[in-house]
Amino acid sequence: MTAGIYASRQKIKTLLITKVFGGQISRKAVMIENYPGFEEISGVELIKRFKKHLRKFPVEILNDTVIKVKKDNKKFRVLTKDGGGEFQARAVIVASGADPRPLEAPGEKEFIGRGVSYCVTCDGPLFQNKEVAVIGGGNAGLEAAIALAQWVKKISILEFFPKLAADASNIQKVKDLGVEIITNAEVKEIKGEEFVNSLIYQNRDSKKLKTVKIDGIFIEIGSIPATDFVKDLVDFNDKDEIIVNPYTAETKTPGLFAAGDVDNVLYKQIVIGCGEGAKAAISAIKYLNPVRSNPA
Amino acid sequence: MTAGIYASRQKIKTLLITKVFGGQISRKAVMIENYPGFEEISGVELIKRFKKHLRKFPVEILNDTVIKVKKDNKKFRVLTKDGGGEFQARAVIVASGADPRPLEAPGEKEFIGRGVSYCVTCDGPLFQNKEVAVIGGGNAGLEAAIALAQWVKKISILEFFPKLAADASNIQKVKDLGVEIITNAEVKEIKGEEFVNSLIYQNRDSKKLKTVKIDGIFIEIGSIPATDFVKDLVDFNDKDEIIVNPYTAETKTPGLFAAGDVDNVLYKQIVIGCGEGAKAAISAIKYLNPVRSNPA
Repeated sequence: MTAGIYASRQKIKTLLITKVFGGQISRKAVMIENYPGFEEISGVELIKRFKKHLRKFPVEILNDTVIKVKKDNKKFRVLTKDGGGEFQARAVIVASGADPRPLEAPGEKEFIGRGVSYCVTCDGPLFQNKEVAVIGGGNAGLEAAIALAQWVKKISILEFFPKLAADASNIQKVKDLGVEIITNAEVKEIKGEEFVNSLIYQNRDSKKLKTVKIDGIFIEIGSIPATDFVKDLVDFNDKDEIIVNPYTAETKTPGLFAAGDVDNVLYKQIVIGCGEGAKAAISAIKYLNPVRSNPA
Repeated sequence: MTAGIYASRQKIKTLLITKVFGGQISRKAVMIENYPGFEEISGVELIKRFKKHLRKFPVEILNDTVIKVKKDNKKFRVLTKDGGGEFQARAVIVASGADPRPLEAPGEKEFIGRGVSYCVTCDGPLFQNKEVAVIGGGNAGLEAAIALAQWVKKISILEFFPKLAADASNIQKVKDLGVEIITNAEVKEIKGEEFVNSLIYQNRDSKKLKTVKIDGIFIEIGSIPATDFVKDLVDFNDKDEIIVNPYTAETKTPGLFAAGDVDNVLYKQIVIGCGEGAKAAISAIKYLNPVRSNPA
């Protein structure tokens, strides 16, 4: 959205293609306290603000999914899924973010929407007075648990490693909320009938298997950059992130830029993603108009 | 301010030392339209918002100027000017921004505050119905002219190079406002008695000298990173910017980080500076607490 604001404000003919606005921000379970200018704002509200800002400028918005980006000579061809067809562009900015990383445990896929969820904001309220597990002891997992506490009866956090890897303040909060913390736990199977009713995990030291009775499982073990549609045109690092020049957001393909959680920026933060989006747009504008020395 | 928000939110004992808040934003002559979340906001108002956000967290704020940062063993010693004395810190983030670049023409220094200004927002209203020159044909110069148009009778922009180097929209606006544009012009002298009354420039092709009668001169030819106090601890690029690791904002001195217009980030934009400030704070937190893997 920041790239869209920057590009369209400079009167670059800009098409923004997205199926949903806000990406990971829209799945954020707790209030955002570190986007400068807003002391405390929900993800939904911040996205609303960004969208309103974007619409101030003449950017065209298409509600669709990009399935492929190709480059012929100096032109890009962007193919979308919902019959929007094919778009041509002289420059492309990939800011597709990241999707939740699946656990890849037996039962996970089968029970999506029937007890397995990757989004507390979306699905948390469905678990009123239920017992749930959160898989993942990082900040995302702990924030999920903190948010879930307002609805559910009991929460267990399962962490693969021997220690939680999160902010001291989040760790304190989950302790204060009486959340059960199970470390060194590898989830082996998700079970149920119509809906999820239990999970089986293995203690990674003792190798013992244990069963936890639960009504819901929230999986918060990180994310995977959403890059399938562009994989022939970029290089990846070992986290499957698009490698860009950190000063310009350029990929290895001239005219193709990437920004935000999709690229190899080290820290995944809203304001950092916004900054990288601005870099990508400024670079794209320079690429399109090489004589203009100082777009902003 | 973003680094301060990030650090103090993570309960790091944080001292923020500044003489003025907002730096270049506070000198910005036009409304800000590209900080995501605010469609249109003045620099003064945006800084107020950031300040309020910062004060939500337990950051200590000292109104002083840093004159020297030294490192002894693993501790930094930060010396300030106004008798605040000496502070000790385990990590330091330099986010001191940039100061206006002087023209270095005879008469410039003598007439500061008597017709020579580097800040339209501060001094523009003093030139009601007067004739002024803006030195510099980049975006900052053109934005200065656009803002000055609400007060002054006549504006001339003098640009050293043969062409203006600014956004199409700014160039259109100054043309619409009837601003005189003089390119290829090298300012040779600023003259006056009690106050400025004229400037002399040379056409760089014809070498002819010309005099422009003016009551005020606004100098908008870029900025110089404010780095004096830290110069023994960092490396500089050819623009006198502090060289940092673009992923982490680390300087060559462990524990010393830099962010924003003071460092070698390529594009100088508010949201980019905020992103870099967040990077610096996260790196500083990791440096202070190496076990904590994912501060945010």
